[in-house]
Amino acid sequence: MHAFLLGATGNAGLELATLLHKHPKINKLSLFSVSHSGTCISDHLQTSPQWYQTILNLEDLMDHIQQADLVFTALPHGISMEWIPQLHAQDVLVIDLSGDFRMQSSSTYEQWYGQTHTAVDLLDQFSYGLPELFLDDIQRSKHIACPGCYPTASLLALAPLAHAGVLNDETIIIDAKSGISGGGKKPTPTNTYQNIYENFQSYGIGSHRHTPEIEEKLSDLGKQAFKVQFTPGLLPIYRGLQVTIYLHGLPRFEKGSLQSLYTDFYQSKPFVQMMDKPPSLRQVQGSNECHIFVYQDQRTGLLMVISAIDNLLKGAAGQAVQNMNVYFGFKETCGLT
Amino acid sequence: MHAFLLGATGNAGLELATLLHKHPKINKLSLFSVSHSGTCISDHLQTSPQWYQTILNLEDLMDHIQQADLVFTALPHGISMEWIPQLHAQDVLVIDLSGDFRMQSSSTYEQWYGQTHTAVDLLDQFSYGLPELFLDDIQRSKHIACPGCYPTASLLALAPLAHAGVLNDETIIIDAKSGISGGGKKPTPTNTYQNIYENFQSYGIGSHRHTPEIEEKLSDLGKQAFKVQFTPGLLPIYRGLQVTIYLHGLPRFEKGSLQSLYTDFYQSKPFVQMMDKPPSLRQVQGSNECHIFVYQDQRTGLLMVISAIDNLLKGAAGQAVQNMNVYFGFKETCGLT
Amino acid sequence: MHAFLLGATGNAGLELATLLHKHPKINKLSLFSVSHSGTCISDHLQTSPQWYQTILNLEDLMDHIQQADLVFTALPHGISMEWIPQLHAQDVLVIDLSGDFRMQSSSTYEQWYGQTHTAVDLLDQFSYGLPELFLDDIQRSKHIACPGCYPTASLLALAPLAHAGVLNDETIIIDAKSGISGGGKKPTPTNTYQNIYENFQSYGIGSHRHTPEIEEKLSDLGKQAFKVQFTPGLLPIYRGLQVTIYLHGLPRFEKGSLQSLYTDFYQSKPFVQMMDKPPSLRQVQGSNECHIFVYQDQRTGLLMVISAIDNLLKGAAGQAVQNMNVYFGFKETCGLT
Amino acid sequence: MHAFLLGATGNAGLELATLLHKHPKINKLSLFSVSHSGTCISDHLQTSPQWYQTILNLEDLMDHIQQADLVFTALPHGISMEWIPQLHAQDVLVIDLSGDFRMQSSSTYEQWYGQTHTAVDLLDQFSYGLPELFLDDIQRSKHIACPGCYPTASLLALAPLAHAGVLNDETIIIDAKSGISGGGKKPTPTNTYQNIYENFQSYGIGSHRHTPEIEEKLSDLGKQAFKVQFTPGLLPIYRGLQVTIYLHGLPRFEKGSLQSLYTDFYQSKPFVQMMDKPPSLRQVQGSNECHIFVYQDQRTGLLMVISAIDNLLKGAAGQAVQNMNVYFGFKETCGLT
Repeated sequence: MHAFLLGATGNAGLELATLLHKHPKINKLSLFSVSHSGTCISDHLQTSPQWYQTILNLEDLMDHIQQADLVFTALPHGISMEWIPQLHAQDVLVIDLSGDFRMQSSSTYEQWYGQTHTAVDLLDQFSYGLPELFLDDIQRSKHIACPGCYPTASLLALAPLAHAGVLNDETIIIDAKSGISGGGKKPTPTNTYQNIYENFQSYGIGSHRHTPEIEEKLSDLGKQAFKVQFTPGLLPIYRGLQVTIYLHGLPRFEKGSLQSLYTDFYQSKPFVQMMDKPPSLRQVQGSNECHIFVYQDQRTGLLMVISAIDNLLKGAAGQAVQNMNVYFGFKETCGLT
Repeated sequence: MHAFLLGATGNAGLELATLLHKHPKINKLSLFSVSHSGTCISDHLQTSPQWYQTILNLEDLMDHIQQADLVFTALPHGISMEWIPQLHAQDVLVIDLSGDFRMQSSSTYEQWYGQTHTAVDLLDQFSYGLPELFLDDIQRSKHIACPGCYPTASLLALAPLAHAGVLNDETIIIDAKSGISGGGKKPTPTNTYQNIYENFQSYGIGSHRHTPEIEEKLSDLGKQAFKVQFTPGLLPIYRGLQVTIYLHGLPRFEKGSLQSLYTDFYQSKPFVQMMDKPPSLRQVQGSNECHIFVYQDQRTGLLMVISAIDNLLKGAAGQAVQNMNVYFGFKETCGLT
Repeated sequence: MHAFLLGATGNAGLELATLLHKHPKINKLSLFSVSHSGTCISDHLQTSPQWYQTILNLEDLMDHIQQADLVFTALPHGISMEWIPQLHAQDVLVIDLSGDFRMQSSSTYEQWYGQTHTAVDLLDQFSYGLPELFLDDIQRSKHIACPGCYPTASLLALAPLAHAGVLNDETIIIDAKSGISGGGKKPTPTNTYQNIYENFQSYGIGSHRHTPEIEEKLSDLGKQAFKVQFTPGLLPIYRGLQVTIYLHGLPRFEKGSLQSLYTDFYQSKPFVQMMDKPPSLRQVQGSNECHIFVYQDQRTGLLMVISAIDNLLKGAAGQAVQNMNVYFGFKETCGLT
Repeated sequence: MHAFLLGATGNAGLELATLLHKHPKINKLSLFSVSHSGTCISDHLQTSPQWYQTILNLEDLMDHIQQADLVFTALPHGISMEWIPQLHAQDVLVIDLSGDFRMQSSSTYEQWYGQTHTAVDLLDQFSYGLPELFLDDIQRSKHIACPGCYPTASLLALAPLAHAGVLNDETIIIDAKSGISGGGKKPTPTNTYQNIYENFQSYGIGSHRHTPEIEEKLSDLGKQAFKVQFTPGLLPIYRGLQVTIYLHGLPRFEKGSLQSLYTDFYQSKPFVQMMDKPPSLRQVQGSNECHIFVYQDQRTGLLMVISAIDNLLKGAAGQAVQNMNVYFGFKETCGLT
């Protein structure tokens, strides 16, 4: 198969380029970029200095599109929705990593992203590409919107409870911590070493765009509306994220039954692992796995779920490949272990 | 004044030694240690290689005690309560940094610390050394128990609400993040560079000893019993901690009134600063300040308080000095700016 | 083939276990340890939490040895030479990662390692396992001593010059910088986060054990005696090392000829890459490559060579696997890309 | 005294602002900037969030200049020489932190800085502000050029040997390692966390501008011409630098005499400390000290000197204050301990 990758030089794009380059089912890969066309992918990939492939100009995409069997769009939100309509007209699988097509509601999009959605009619063409939870949708959809990194970890942590119908209507608290790679590669005062090292700071309080994404998908899973208080913080690390979720007022689970609920739910899912202590980011860095720890405090009754992923893999590029595998019927772990 | 410092070579002890060494009201400082007696303080203080003072043997303490005007005990919990009774018999101010005398309830101590309290009769001799909240007690007490680092940040964040009587009986959620210096200096598999760098992991879930300390003192402040779900995590940094507190079901505050509640409460307190965005650890590292951000989400109604301190200063050594200043009637900021 | 790994839980041992576990020519792997027998390899490998294999007791090695096709010894120096004689009696390939059998001179060993060599008669049974430079020896030797990490980077940097006969008898200056993983895994005051973060310090000046190893092998290559001034420093990172070599009094090379000398020398070597600017550690972390930059200053005439490797791969475990590949006639890069 | 600081928001400027703000002899401080005029200094100083002073527009400097007793210029090279001529016309002490007036030779400047020097006639008005070595010059000069960070560490390391007349004409090798703060504050692909963390890379080989500065001043001290091969590398840390110097062909010193040479030379210098092992950066971070270790290898005869400073203090802002102290006859350590 011949894959196209649009936006090859961002953090997620480079990670995806690396995965596709060695994926056994991809025998040709074309790389596109607006800002870095004409440069060599090895100039951008510090860790693969000898991969000499020229990046093509995204503006020339439609001249080559007939050759593509599938297209990954790792473009910024807002830009992705400019290109997707043209791809929609082709008979080609589209896997989008941006935030543009994750939510079904364009009004929610416009409220949280602060801009008009220019491809509203395509929203219902997209499945939500979280294979552990929406497998059937993904298998029969030519357009797949890959989830955000925080929603991936949050939804995998909450899905067994939502599915079991035990969540109540109290606001769900999600306290998240992520490395810097989730925030884009362009040098800014935020992502300098000077600002990040030996530091920690919460951000996006009450306004992070992953909030409505989690709410919409969790409501789909639990078949009722949920509200989420989502608070991310910036760890002084490059990759990996953890979410700690606090749930008030759930029933008291009998000994072992909470763990069983999760183990049963994920028993056939190769990338989800239940842990008997809180996951460390080290365990998931470099892998497509999600590690989950669930706990109910006997003293307070509070239920906590902690999950960890590599934001660039299970939270972005790895999940995109997993979606490709699922769609084409390859082994789900193909090219990901 | 002549100060004694027992336990001079731990993380908090070294920080305290440095502060006392340059404090304008301390003209003599004696350093004691069990494990490092006979060594030079400069061997332990990487940043002051020319402070050549020999550390005395703690076993010889009582031979010198008549010279002391005040004694700081920066000993591990369990060890502190072995020495305090002997100091109690002297006419000397005792400022203890361990966990042994923070709580009034010995049964709570024994339940969470897993050991018998051997100086129960002295518990009520100790004031709780958080000067912003317990000033009167500190001023008239010859024994002061310095709060834990997490309780300091948590109680300062919650006190204005407790004082205003608006907290309810829902479990209070405290999600905390701290650098490695809070955990002791002895090399262990946990505090190696190999384990810490580029990592994050929650720990002590449901069992951290600062939980009952926060609960007891908050209940004192709010005049009702509170439960706390306290979850710390280990940041890949050396110093600094942040707590993010989530409160369900509080009244909706009118615009500005929540901020005013805090500003008014802390208006005469030199070390507490209200911030208009979440505090970064960088802001408080190296200072005795506590930075607080308070926020109520208009969409969910949830109330959040975020506070940050340097765990070795406001969370340990700095606060100990602040307590000394308060007790002796020095300027509260003396030696701390 | 069935491989045995003795010393599976050290830094190099774990890296080697991971490589062998997925090597296409190894279908069985037995793990041995003295201090951690009975534990599970997944307890030691933070990044592979689901590899459930029990580590056997090294004391029981000889009960199983008949099953082994090859044995890797990743034991500390001094311990390795206790076990190698027993393995020598078997018809099995031995690849040793310790310092015990790298040098031919037992007196040099005893002088720099400060202990008696107890298997002197086996020293000449060992080839020096740096395949780019000693390929023939490795192919016909049943015992292979893998080079130290610093010697690997240093010898690869100097070999083309030694081979060309242009080195003189001035002391060769090697200023090296390495991450913490080269120094063992046991928690010590040196390898705590507290000591390493935001720090740098030179160590082992004039006394580092890799000095005589570099001198002996370089003298073999250049067919004359050389002296080396070797000065390592500890970077605040986990993995990767760089050596910067300064050479006085070499002939002035004509434009391009220096680069050609290196390019020609390494043209068929898959793991050595010549760079046109100084290599960064990022480029080699996680790979078995050695990146080399060579430069002659037109103003001073000084010649500099800078090389970088991942100390745990090309400097230890990766090179061990490369040696295995070379010995058995597998593709040199098998299991290493 | 009233001090002006031009260029208050760069890395060195902020450090200098902080030092001057609390210096006992400075009772007024005016801050100037082109790019950040109108903003508050607290917006730039993460660690002092409550210092509310507005930064003035550098373009308005001459309207205020009559009030100044002294002016610090912490401007980029090239910009500094635009402003110095105007200050020269005033009766005011000028302490410049840029590279523009460090060297006496304008042709050397133009060759290494790649631009025309536009204030050549002022070069001989400047003393070289390294007080340990050029005290007399500084005391009688109204214009002081503060040394670069690497030259400070290098010259302090070499001066005792130059003064003793034992240096020969072999190229002096200086292998340096520095944190990121030496390189400017503006976000670039080089200073992002992504590029710096867990990395190390040499740069500026054969072309770094501190090379001729070291050569010119060392030649002044040793009264003969010297050549230097200077190779810096970028450590994954924020502040601190170390230089390791290698000297061929020096006389063999008798036991203790090398150490004495240094101890005697620096015996009255409060900021230079001789160490008996290689200095760590931790020891000098946050201080104006320079720590020096000197060693002659008995085996090779090579002589090594290692020195460490905080590049932002002894290598920039601290040294600027030290120069001010020296010029005005204050205690040399005033405001620096």
